[in-house]
Amino acid sequence: MPVNLSTPVAAQLLPVAGVSLGIAEAGIKRKARKDLLIIALEEDVTVAGVFTTNRFCAAPVTVAREHLAVNKGIRALVINTGNANAGTGEQGMKDARTTCAELAKLLGCASEQILPFSTGVIMEPLPVSKIVAGMPQAIENLKSDNWYEAAHAIMTTDIVAKAASRQVKLGGNTITITGISKGSGMIHPNMATMLGYIATDAKIAQPLLQEMVRQAADKSFNCITVDGDTSTNDALMLIATGKSAVEINGADRAEMQAAITDVATELAQAIVRDGEGATKFITLQIEGGKDEEECKKIGYAIAHSPLVKTAFFASDPNLGRILAAIGYAGVADLDVVKLRLYLDDVLVAENGGRAMSYQEEDGQRVMQQSDITIRVVLDRGEIDATLWTCDFSYDYVKINASYRS
Amino acid sequence: MPVNLSTPVAAQLLPVAGVSLGIAEAGIKRKARKDLLIIALEEDVTVAGVFTTNRFCAAPVTVAREHLAVNKGIRALVINTGNANAGTGEQGMKDARTTCAELAKLLGCASEQILPFSTGVIMEPLPVSKIVAGMPQAIENLKSDNWYEAAHAIMTTDIVAKAASRQVKLGGNTITITGISKGSGMIHPNMATMLGYIATDAKIAQPLLQEMVRQAADKSFNCITVDGDTSTNDALMLIATGKSAVEINGADRAEMQAAITDVATELAQAIVRDGEGATKFITLQIEGGKDEEECKKIGYAIAHSPLVKTAFFASDPNLGRILAAIGYAGVADLDVVKLRLYLDDVLVAENGGRAMSYQEEDGQRVMQQSDITIRVVLDRGEIDATLWTCDFSYDYVKINASYRS
Repeated sequence: MPVNLSTPVAAQLLPVAGVSLGIAEAGIKRKARKDLLIIALEEDVTVAGVFTTNRFCAAPVTVAREHLAVNKGIRALVINTGNANAGTGEQGMKDARTTCAELAKLLGCASEQILPFSTGVIMEPLPVSKIVAGMPQAIENLKSDNWYEAAHAIMTTDIVAKAASRQVKLGGNTITITGISKGSGMIHPNMATMLGYIATDAKIAQPLLQEMVRQAADKSFNCITVDGDTSTNDALMLIATGKSAVEINGADRAEMQAAITDVATELAQAIVRDGEGATKFITLQIEGGKDEEECKKIGYAIAHSPLVKTAFFASDPNLGRILAAIGYAGVADLDVVKLRLYLDDVLVAENGGRAMSYQEEDGQRVMQQSDITIRVVLDRGEIDATLWTCDFSYDYVKINASYRS
Repeated sequence: MPVNLSTPVAAQLLPVAGVSLGIAEAGIKRKARKDLLIIALEEDVTVAGVFTTNRFCAAPVTVAREHLAVNKGIRALVINTGNANAGTGEQGMKDARTTCAELAKLLGCASEQILPFSTGVIMEPLPVSKIVAGMPQAIENLKSDNWYEAAHAIMTTDIVAKAASRQVKLGGNTITITGISKGSGMIHPNMATMLGYIATDAKIAQPLLQEMVRQAADKSFNCITVDGDTSTNDALMLIATGKSAVEINGADRAEMQAAITDVATELAQAIVRDGEGATKFITLQIEGGKDEEECKKIGYAIAHSPLVKTAFFASDPNLGRILAAIGYAGVADLDVVKLRLYLDDVLVAENGGRAMSYQEEDGQRVMQQSDITIRVVLDRGEIDATLWTCDFSYDYVKINASYRS
């Protein structure tokens, strides 16, 4: 069950002027399941995105990158679940292009103004005719206050839908930012993300928007992992409609960036809280490193260790496993005598071994919590990094031993 | 249950002249469990070893390295289970030295002639007085045909004991090689190994012996992974007693190396077959790479993917997960259109997607086997690498959610 995460409240998801969302049941994998989402954009909206670094990236990722590069102005995003259209070779590319062409016809725009996205099983042909057949229903359904339904339409093994809204005041004007995301397994975004869509009514020029989405991704989706598996289909899109009175420029940028990163972080953390089989939400704070790379190396070594993850599932403070993970993280000159390990506020290890003050019952107490922070103070530099992950339970095995069937 | 692995036959484990082994119940963690092994060596025996690269390496690893460097001639190895003496700081170093000093007194040699080894829980103080108290019992028990009992005495979560013997004829003389190993979880030896001890009655000079153990480790223990966790205590020791008439020199070296590597490989594969919760033994053959590093990167990405491992547990040919793992392995210029993926003899993927000839029932058939080969043909170079791993089952979670308690 998701860790301290509940379904978003529909009324709290604020419409973004210039964006409308439509849902359909296209029957891609199962009947009577919302599996198709169209996000329609008015003219002169800017869109930027970051994508998976997986070499087996999905056909829609390749097509979306191409269409963004053409820079004709994006008029719609089309997202299907139930099939990833990844590992599908030339046919997959054709199917992604057909999806765009058919939607472009219905919306009266060019094919290059459509961005396609898919998520689901890898290496199976995309049922493109079902997607095309579902488009009219989704178009008929287009509404600006449809974020709640949209968040549900992109779910796969997610138990809870993921959405977040913020408003910021800039120069007396209110700007709205609303986003949705999906993902639960195959989560280890690498300089990219799982599926995430964030829109704002601020006006932001394309190059700046690209910088802002990259920066938001690096501090949010690129700091989470469930199972260390980097998906073939990760994408985070940032949409700026410019329908508010505010254009983001140098002065407002930091505040706007903070608000966007804030929404992205909430969406990214929601993916971990709803991680497949998760029973614990774990924050990893690695402090006092020489650079971000070594902090992340240590953080991910802990976050990916099946031994650490199963100990957390068992609420067993078998914390030597964390030391072992730190030790094999690949930081060659790490002095283990200098570092300190904390579990929330409890000092666990220092001077290369268990802290004198450490009491098993303190470890036990923290391990019972559903939200836990592992803090590693390296004491060799000024750089910190924060990552988020979850534990590893019977249910992870169960979900992934049966997902396809 | 171990995958196609049975307990070694005691009578097939050949004594090695110059080596005797003694076992005791020292009560380190549990009563009535063989948990202490002493391997006594006659004079003028050469010993070489490779050790974990984990920065949190255990105190006994540090002491063993020191004592090997002193080069006074090793007279005994002492191995305890139930406690790793890792993450134990200064006290751990004292405890490892005390262990050596006390055994040296009993055997009438110098402390530097003893090599200590520990395996078990991390970050708990070594019960050194129990180990010392158990030594007389182990010494009394010293016998040359005790390899079978010794293999049992070093087990932790292992279900089956691991041992192997070979004989080779060199210039009309017969040389014996016998080895034991242990390990089941926290298995991802990194230029080192889990606990392994191999002895031969050949005469091999120290520098050559060191080269040979390194080479054997690189082709055996350094090619296995159960869970990607590199232990704090990994060690592979190679002992050459010189009691046979044969001294290994240039001419015989290749043949002798092959025999040692063969024993090491059988012991390493036994660890994977007895991997925690394993139901499948998976061989990963990565062929046609530019160098060994990229072959191993791709092999380990597949071997460590929880999604791949759980699909194999389920006997579900959800093979797109293998493509995803290849894609995120970190080979930046990998052309996925060129590679071919096979499951045993079944061609699964080519041209960036599912092979035209692939039939789901062929995948199903291979997935039912307990021994399966995943073959990735990269078609970009001349280098191959072979790794061995196992699947990921409910029992892995069960074992590691309860190991300490």
